[in-house]
Amino acid sequence: MSAIYFDVTTRSGRARTGVIHTPHGDIATPAFIPVGTKATVKTLDINDLATLNAPAVLANTYHLYLRPGEKLIEKFGGVGKFMGYGGPTFTDSGGFQVFSLGFGLEHGVGKVSNFFPDEGPVKDNIAKKKKLFNIDQDGVNFVSHLDGSKHRFTPESSIHIQQQIGADIILAFDECTSPLHDKKYTAEAMERTHDWAARSVNAWTNRQTQGLYGIIQGGAYKDLRIKSSEFIAALDTPGIAIGGSLGKSKKDMYDILDWTIPVLPEERPRHLLGIGEIEDLFGASAKGIDTFDCVAPTRNARNGSVFIHPENGGNLKNKFSLNIRAAKYAQDSGPIDPGCACFTCQNHSRAYLRHLFASGELLAMRLTTIHNLHFIFRLMESIRKAIRNEELQLLSAFWRINH
Amino acid sequence: MSAIYFDVTTRSGRARTGVIHTPHGDIATPAFIPVGTKATVKTLDINDLATLNAPAVLANTYHLYLRPGEKLIEKFGGVGKFMGYGGPTFTDSGGFQVFSLGFGLEHGVGKVSNFFPDEGPVKDNIAKKKKLFNIDQDGVNFVSHLDGSKHRFTPESSIHIQQQIGADIILAFDECTSPLHDKKYTAEAMERTHDWAARSVNAWTNRQTQGLYGIIQGGAYKDLRIKSSEFIAALDTPGIAIGGSLGKSKKDMYDILDWTIPVLPEERPRHLLGIGEIEDLFGASAKGIDTFDCVAPTRNARNGSVFIHPENGGNLKNKFSLNIRAAKYAQDSGPIDPGCACFTCQNHSRAYLRHLFASGELLAMRLTTIHNLHFIFRLMESIRKAIRNEELQLLSAFWRINH
Repeated sequence: MSAIYFDVTTRSGRARTGVIHTPHGDIATPAFIPVGTKATVKTLDINDLATLNAPAVLANTYHLYLRPGEKLIEKFGGVGKFMGYGGPTFTDSGGFQVFSLGFGLEHGVGKVSNFFPDEGPVKDNIAKKKKLFNIDQDGVNFVSHLDGSKHRFTPESSIHIQQQIGADIILAFDECTSPLHDKKYTAEAMERTHDWAARSVNAWTNRQTQGLYGIIQGGAYKDLRIKSSEFIAALDTPGIAIGGSLGKSKKDMYDILDWTIPVLPEERPRHLLGIGEIEDLFGASAKGIDTFDCVAPTRNARNGSVFIHPENGGNLKNKFSLNIRAAKYAQDSGPIDPGCACFTCQNHSRAYLRHLFASGELLAMRLTTIHNLHFIFRLMESIRKAIRNEELQLLSAFWRINH
Repeated sequence: MSAIYFDVTTRSGRARTGVIHTPHGDIATPAFIPVGTKATVKTLDINDLATLNAPAVLANTYHLYLRPGEKLIEKFGGVGKFMGYGGPTFTDSGGFQVFSLGFGLEHGVGKVSNFFPDEGPVKDNIAKKKKLFNIDQDGVNFVSHLDGSKHRFTPESSIHIQQQIGADIILAFDECTSPLHDKKYTAEAMERTHDWAARSVNAWTNRQTQGLYGIIQGGAYKDLRIKSSEFIAALDTPGIAIGGSLGKSKKDMYDILDWTIPVLPEERPRHLLGIGEIEDLFGASAKGIDTFDCVAPTRNARNGSVFIHPENGGNLKNKFSLNIRAAKYAQDSGPIDPGCACFTCQNHSRAYLRHLFASGELLAMRLTTIHNLHFIFRLMESIRKAIRNEELQLLSAFWRINH
């Protein structure tokens, strides 16, 4: 029996609700998966993840391979046991990280918006070098962002490392292109990704304990995306991810979903890599995406950007958020969001949170991270309920989101 | 009725157990009070304080006065309500902070060891300037370490600010001398502190809601300490603190306790300011100290220094601690301390904690802070039990501590 299997429970248009069954529990979909790059969702402990009812955690193979190393994590029984987390886990393949530290920097762009996977040394790298990797048909040589040491990933090594890291859901090794790549290069990269996906499937020998997702590439080119969807869907994997450049605008992203999703089999879960703005969660759920991961809700929290409901001033323009560091909140005795039941909103004022940020207190980042994840998990709950009740358009309209 | 009153419950030599009754709950003594400088015990939330059974929190008047300001805290109902903490609270008077940012830096020394109250800009200040304050008989002018702005504290303004901050236990405004001051200056400063203590008592108009402690000064000079003890004990305050320079060695500190404590009335609680190494908690409890505060257990935790019990390798030389960042723990699957019941030890390996530190993850500091405070609160519980059972010497011997 496969480690991962999926039940669609309700359908409404292309949207659906379902359950992904994993060796470490079920994930009700559509679901937002928080990112725990280095085997921790930044600032949160495992009790927090339980209290928040986090559906799963997605860790990054690139980072864990470099530190503490996949062998250590394997010795501890996998990333879940290593971090003390009992729920479902994902790892990406390392592909996006390697290439975003290369082309992403080179072109100054990330996925849809400017997005880089690692906070620290990126700016220095932009200044110092243009490219941290060299690709060939077999794999990619890259330089560690930590210490400049040289490394190589191939589809086989990525899968082997992911087997050692031991997440429930792992991803095929892919080449991630930038929105600024031309069609010729994007097509070449896509063909390479297909070859690598097939090799990833061959290397994936532990189907009873880990589920592999293939990754669709093809940039913002319709024929490439359709071709890639057909190729990836034809592989024998329990799930499918949509990756790579999702174009230069929200429209590009929705176009890509409109091209790819109708090609994909209904019975397998679909993961949209690296996307998680509130607007996108509505729009992509409506188009049939089942799971999302994105650093934005947690990273933004650490910068003081916290979610607010439309009833309390959230809208598309402010991305349903306010910045708690603003001077205007210095005396504000209310919670971040008056309708929010999270620990932070139940116990702390905007003024206190602003004070913690102004004072450089780490508790600030923890409390805002708790709020943002609570907010987004509750939003996904609302989206699931709306799909079940055939009310997703209504809910979107309430949030003033068109998709 | 006084806001603060004290019951001695058992005596064993000079040591005693007791209960300090405050408007926000009882403190079983001897007790270690964690420091929450800026209205947060760094990295912990209020649930953590409850889970750890923290007896109280001590916040710093100097820092809260500068940011967010005492008026804001008063508007929120005091520091406890501002930070969402329902337990007992202390504030210091700001004296130590002002002078440690002056003489402490000038002389390069703190209390017994090198200890500075604020982490950030201290090194810069050492390089740039020698003195950030000017003292006169009426009070002290000082410069903010945050922005260089000019301020003035007097005994009356310190007490007024502490009334606005609203802690249960507040401290008289004192001049804190350095171990390198000569006897002549130390005596002058002590006389000024006595004058200021009397003025603090006069300014302390809300005896039903806040309890004031006077502070004994006099450096490491026997006659001065005895004189100061007599003066401060003669004031009508519900508690007494021992402050200032406690000499250049542990022996000096214990000498000072031997000079001062026999002079003090039995029925009032005694607080030892800024002291909290494990050795000191034993030694000073044995000499009749009831409460302690110190940043060391929490600051050391954030640097990776975590407590271990004597049964697990802790001793005087390693200060009952190990540094979890050391390479030798990279593969260590055991908890920090195998006998510890804290959240961190129950859930996480040394290897994981070391990985979090190596990766710069904030969770590292939170988990070690939880461990260190749990450890020290349980130690105080053991010390209280040992005093009740007339076994403090036995417990000290088990820890290989002579006092």
